[in-house]
Amino acid sequence: MSAPDPNRLALNTATTRKKWSLAEAIAGCARHGIKGIAPWRDQLQVMGVEAAARAIRGNGLTVTGLCRGGMFPAIDPAGRRAAIDENRRALEEAYRLQAQCLILVAGGLPDGSKDIAGARMQIQDGIAALLPLARQARIPLAIEPLHPMYAADRACINTLSQALDLCDALDPPGEGGLGVAVDVYHVWWDPELELQIARAGKARIVAGRGQGHRLSQPGSRLLVRSRLQIALLGRCF
Amino acid sequence: MSAPDPNRLALNTATTRKKWSLAEAIAGCARHGIKGIAPWRDQLQVMGVEAAARAIRGNGLTVTGLCRGGMFPAIDPAGRRAAIDENRRALEEAYRLQAQCLILVAGGLPDGSKDIAGARMQIQDGIAALLPLARQARIPLAIEPLHPMYAADRACINTLSQALDLCDALDPPGEGGLGVAVDVYHVWWDPELELQIARAGKARIVAGRGQGHRLSQPGSRLLVRSRLQIALLGRCF
Repeated sequence: MSAPDPNRLALNTATTRKKWSLAEAIAGCARHGIKGIAPWRDQLQVMGVEAAARAIRGNGLTVTGLCRGGMFPAIDPAGRRAAIDENRRALEEAYRLQAQCLILVAGGLPDGSKDIAGARMQIQDGIAALLPLARQARIPLAIEPLHPMYAADRACINTLSQALDLCDALDPPGEGGLGVAVDVYHVWWDPELELQIARAGKARIVAGRGQGHRLSQPGSRLLVRSRLQIALLGRCF
Repeated sequence: MSAPDPNRLALNTATTRKKWSLAEAIAGCARHGIKGIAPWRDQLQVMGVEAAARAIRGNGLTVTGLCRGGMFPAIDPAGRRAAIDENRRALEEAYRLQAQCLILVAGGLPDGSKDIAGARMQIQDGIAALLPLARQARIPLAIEPLHPMYAADRACINTLSQALDLCDALDPPGEGGLGVAVDVYHVWWDPELELQIARAGKARIVAGRGQGHRLSQPGSRLLVRSRLQIALLGRCF
């Protein structure tokens, strides 16, 4: 694999968070010619949303996605309402950063629960509640399927097929505002990966990630070449 | 969950191997009224196949499955032929034990390989090579999908859907001799679990396993009630 073109890369700040603050990550991207950045909300709070937005704009960077919303399931209705409120705040921050999407890590089983079907329904209900605001703000929601090893504690959306079924259920006419994030770390094993990437197409792939790089461009064409490699072939299909 | 009826249980000796030899496991099953046993080949070699067969018959036990065949992918043709030869020996042992099936743990990626599609093709070729002998011996092959966290090193058959597709590809007219083993430890997270169990039906479910118990009866009806529970509802559909 040849060295990636920094113009086509975005830095997910999860990969630098132990060494860099968000301000340092923004400066680092600028210094290395990386045009995109995907900040995490906790680092964003520390820096302050307005200061971050100014620094990002000032360095000519694009926010390819805000990490992260989601975590919808909760043991009671109050917990589920609080999760939706938290996601509304995340959407507002994404709007202020002019992010290309809000990444959703769906959430796992509520404490003490073994009802995975129920948790999945809570996720669907949570995204349904959030979608109108996302469309209004023009911030697409990107459902990220996580590896099944995270099904209990972080996300019980575990395949691209399942994430796309959820998109189809909540956004049947393809009005937009809802899609998927494809991270090779989570999906490389999936026997339906190529099939579901083709199914997702330009309309549904909001973000892609490979080998610690976030290769995120709306409508990017993703091709999985091997277990740990996603190649970005172009900006359009 | 009420205590399981020992008449409906089978002991997979993987759960007792650190404390019991195969001879002790056979005696333990008899003592506790457990009618089925699924021995592992390494313990079988230590005891000797004929001695094990005699002890199993003498205690009125059924061998619900022999663990395990599979491990088909290899870096070169000689390695793949050796794997098939090893599986033929496993089938012969299963025949001598009058096992109800030979469990197949498919195998992961060959050393140094990242070609998961190629490994999956090698698995298909290996099972195809083994199937005529399995049918002749009347020992069904039971493909066991393993949790995706094992995809690289133990089995790149990772969903029930994928295992059933493989069955359909190799056994299209339903001649028999090929099915799946459903282990709740490996498949509990799968959003298509109930759907694929229904698809598998009586003809394809050769073995089932839950919470460390192997609940194995050909044609058993399996219902997944929760993440960690498979209930065996009856012997026939």
